[in-house]
This record gives sequence, C-alpha cells and structure tokens, in this order.
Amino acid sequence: MKFGRISRESPDGAIARLVVVEPEKGRVIDLARAGALYAMGKRHATQAAAMRLAQAQFPGSMAQALGASDILVDAATEAIQGSYGDDASLDINNVTWLPASDPPVLRDGLTFVGHIKGWHERMQREVPESMLLIPGFTKNSPSTAIGHNSVVPWPGYIKSKMDYELELGYVIGREGGSVRPEDAMKYVFGITLYNDFSGRDLQHNELPIGMGSTKSKDFAHAIGPWITTLDEFKDLDSIPMEVRVNGETWGKGNSGGKLWTVAELVAYVSLGEKILPGDVIGSGTMGGGSALELGRELKPGDVVELEASGVGVLRTTMGQPIDGLWWPERRKPFM
Amino acid sequence: MKFGRISRESPDGAIARLVVVEPEKGRVIDLARAGALYAMGKRHATQAAAMRLAQAQFPGSMAQALGASDILVDAATEAIQGSYGDDASLDINNVTWLPASDPPVLRDGLTFVGHIKGWHERMQREVPESMLLIPGFTKNSPSTAIGHNSVVPWPGYIKSKMDYELELGYVIGREGGSVRPEDAMKYVFGITLYNDFSGRDLQHNELPIGMGSTKSKDFAHAIGPWITTLDEFKDLDSIPMEVRVNGETWGKGNSGGKLWTVAELVAYVSLGEKILPGDVIGSGTMGGGSALELGRELKPGDVVELEASGVGVLRTTMGQPIDGLWWPERRKPFM
Repeated sequence: MKFGRISRESPDGAIARLVVVEPEKGRVIDLARAGALYAMGKRHATQAAAMRLAQAQFPGSMAQALGASDILVDAATEAIQGSYGDDASLDINNVTWLPASDPPVLRDGLTFVGHIKGWHERMQREVPESMLLIPGFTKNSPSTAIGHNSVVPWPGYIKSKMDYELELGYVIGREGGSVRPEDAMKYVFGITLYNDFSGRDLQHNELPIGMGSTKSKDFAHAIGPWITTLDEFKDLDSIPMEVRVNGETWGKGNSGGKLWTVAELVAYVSLGEKILPGDVIGSGTMGGGSALELGRELKPGDVVELEASGVGVLRTTMGQPIDGLWWPERRKPFM
Repeated sequence: MKFGRISRESPDGAIARLVVVEPEKGRVIDLARAGALYAMGKRHATQAAAMRLAQAQFPGSMAQALGASDILVDAATEAIQGSYGDDASLDINNVTWLPASDPPVLRDGLTFVGHIKGWHERMQREVPESMLLIPGFTKNSPSTAIGHNSVVPWPGYIKSKMDYELELGYVIGREGGSVRPEDAMKYVFGITLYNDFSGRDLQHNELPIGMGSTKSKDFAHAIGPWITTLDEFKDLDSIPMEVRVNGETWGKGNSGGKLWTVAELVAYVSLGEKILPGDVIGSGTMGGGSALELGRELKPGDVVELEASGVGVLRTTMGQPIDGLWWPERRKPFM
C-alpha cells in the first residue's frame, strides 16, 4: 500500500489529510472521509461517531497516524473497500501534496560507499577511520520538510554550490529503543524518497565546528511523494534510482553498495534513544546522487526529480534566492 | 512565574500535568485542576466544560501549552488566584518531575569562550576559524529528555569519560522563522537548566565523521527543574551558575563571557527554519562547566547538581551501565 498526505480546503482553512495512493488507478483516497463512510454504511455508526472515529484513526499527521502502528493499515484496508473508497477518491493529478511524513525526528544516514568516496574526493578530505567504526548520521530540522511539487525555499545566504541529494527515506512505523539489527526491519513501515538539499559552500564552513550541518541543510528537506509499505519491495539493495535536473539525467544507479545495511542503520539510530512513528531516516546519498560529485550545481528555477522504483517521482522546483536575511558578523579571534 | 511538568497517577495510568511552581511557598499548582476550579467557581462553567477548557489550556505537554503563547501566561495567572490555586496545590517535595519541556527540537549551542578554549585544549584540537564566522549548534534527540531527580541511563557502550555539561536552556514560547537578533528575545519564554551528558571517548570517534554527535550525547538530556519566565532575569550575562558532584563544587562561574549573545544564537537558529514553542536551545557549556576541562569524569551512582540563580537546582543520579546492547562491527577499509 501507499500512504501520503495532501492539503485540502475546509471551513477552518487548509488542513492536512491522510490518503491512500493508487497511482495505477490515477487516484488518492481521503482516508478520514472513506473511514466515516465505511463506519456509517457498513457498521451502522451515526454520522457524528463515524467522523469522530475516522478522524482519530486517520489524522492528517503521518506521525500521529503511524502511532497506531498495526491498527492503521488494517483500518485503512477496511475503509477503502468498494464504494467507500470510490466515494472518497480524488484525482491524483489534482491534489496538493504535503511532506509524506511530519517526522518527530528527521535523521540522515551515510551508507553508500560510492557517495562517501565521491564526496570526500570533491571536498578534498580523507575518509575518516571513524566511518568504518560506526554508522554516521545527522539530525535535521523537521520544520523544513516540504512535499512533492513544492518550490524549494532558497535562503540568500547560500550563494553558490546548491545541491540535491538522491536518497531513500526509511519511515518508522513502530516505537522502539535499542533495537537489534535482527529485529530492526519490523520497525520500518515503508520507504519514500528524500531530497536533502545542501549548500556546499556553507557546509564547508560548518564542518570544522564538529556539531553537524546547520544552515547548509536546514532550509528544505523534500519527503515524498508518498510512502510505499515495506512488503512491496523484494530487495532493499537493488532498487533502481535516478535523479534528473530539467529532464536530464544527472545520476543513475541503484540502492546497492552499502557500508551498513538498512537494519544496521536503524538499529544504530535507535541505540540509547527512541525511534518514533513517523520518523524518517535518510539512507544517505546514493553514489553519484549529488551534483557535487559531478562538479555541477543547481540554479534558481531548476526542476529536480528523484525517482525510485516502487516509490515514484519526487519533483521540486528551486525557488529564487530570498534576500534581506540577517547574517552574523565575524567575531575577533580570542585565542 | 515558574512553569514545570510533573507526573501524576490517574485512572489511565501516569499522566503529565502542567504546574506553576512556587518554591517560596513550597508548592506546585496543578494548572488543569486550578483552571477547572476557576472556570466553575468564578465563571459559572459546568464541570464538563470547565475540565474540557482547562485541559485544552493546560495540557501536560509544555510544547502544546506554549503553542498558545501569550494566552498561556494570562490563563495561568487567572487560574491560580486565591482558593483555586490553593485547592490545586501539591507539596513541592512530594512530586515526580518530568522534563520541564518536551521540545519538538532540542538544540545545543556553543557560546561560552571559556568552554570553547578548555574543550579544545583537552581534546588537543585547534579552535577552528569557522567558530568565529557562525554560531555553532547541534541538534539532539528529544526522546532522551529526563527531568529533575531522575536516574541518568548509562548505556554500556560508554566505557569511560562520562561527563556533565553545565548549561542554561533557552525555552522558545512563540513560533518564528528567520528572526532578527533585535526581535529574537520576544521568542524566548524563559530559562531552565540543561545538562547535556556526554561520553567523551565516544565523542572522539564521532567527531571526524562531521555529522554531529550521536550516541555520545543522545542517551540523556536533563531539562529542569522548571522554567523561569524571562521577566525574572535582570541580566542574562551575569547569572551565577554552579555544578556540584556528590555535594562537592566542580565548577562555578556565571553566564558571562559569550562569543554570541542569546539573541544572536536564537536568531541564527531560526534562520531558514522554524523555532517552535517548547523548543529548548542550550546555551553551550559554561567555562569550567564540564569534568573534561578538569581531567575528571563521572562514575555510576554520582549525584550531579546544576544550579543557576533564578532557576534552581537540577539534580540527577548517574545510573549503572546497561549491558548487553548491540554495537556495530568494524567495517573493512574500502579505499
């Protein structure tokens, strides 16, 4: 199954709605609506009770919806049956997409050997010994998540070397902590595409501080177009992936060649802390999945498409630089 | 005013409750209870409506409560008047504290010149040029937040050099993005204490990866004991601060000597992303506010107290190492 989030108009203004996506039928099903129709039509609930239950089962927040874990998929499968699903359907080409999840914590791993090599060559850095010891990952700011078909905000302090990153996003569907690799995949609900836009010049300044990327990353994290449940993938190490800029293929490959398996990454992330329903863990960039590795960069107006077989296409358009933002003044040396 | 969170038993099990803290009266006031008593006693609401409104105004989540911004303090001030506050009071020495906030995003800055010097000397690193260009900060995992009087979980993979960090936590009370320094303090609701426990040996391995600290930090972040609103502080650069281990003073100083002001740090954090109600931004460690700088370390069972004038004392006890956790196996070099 495929789950996503769209924005709909309501008497309270625009609100988020959870949907089941059926690309082959060209439609999405508004789950809260289908669930209410099902509760009334098949289970004899009053309209008020049907709406109350459906909104509790199918909230607009993916994190909240996935909080119900196994209950969500069962309830959605029931709700979209026959006419209930038909009557709650919308044209897939005529909806406004929201980020496929609203992750409590948005992390980004580093697992593809090809990208680790390519990035370090371009940044003129040695691959540190530590990368062989532990899976690297960083934490990003979830408030900057954007959805399919969005315009990417471009803060004016990113002057050059704007980049995309072609990544899968592993979406957590069950709360856990200190999970072992042999159990870790039970906590993964599904897979989405993740574009971790990066200002490489700024990143170069941030790296020596040793606290992770901040402004070079936390302006836009595209997540979508939707989440495909894990059962639809045969092999997580052979998913064909591609990135196109203005229709031209800039990178192509598959999800193989990992230093750490998906299970190891998820297990490591969960050590000593929690993985929460709705959390997105980026796979790290596929080898050749960034413009940096090609010596290229994005310009305002560029259309960036990530594609992964079994998921779909995540399309975004680079916005115009936003001028007039404050920027800190350089301090005097103190040592 | 001082706001905190406690855990109380209910027919649904333990639940979080928002409180106003009155240390001078030796009590805390359960706000949802006081608010319901006030709505019934003074505003003629039915019991059902009074409870519904009070729970909407004073949820157990500080992030949700602060989402109401200015409305929260006004509503709390009304609710705790006279007998309504008295009848909803609990003995301050007999409550179970929760983390003072449940931050949507938990960040930690780096602003005290003394600590930057001391840390780099001990870690045998040069202070990077970048630290003069931009305020450094990192993002931590909010699920590991613990409250006053907690036992600190000690994952067994932290073998040695367990450390505390003496920090203030700036708590956000208004949603904002790309805020300028001259406006930034309007977004700060109040101040709490923040103890960013750190496994220094592990941190040494994580640093070269360049993605920020992960397992060396994300096992315990103590936040509390409560939040003192900003109006109670005359000068954010002269708050006396102290850290004690088993009653012995290990560090003492004040909140002066900053490379970046509180306003600059908050403004920088908000650039291109959002600061959200309930977010906690650590000040960074006060100079001399870590055991690392003294060549010392914590042991299981140690009692660590952070104190800041105008806030109070945040006391935690180091737990016993948790054995049997999975840890990744070293990879073979690939270059």
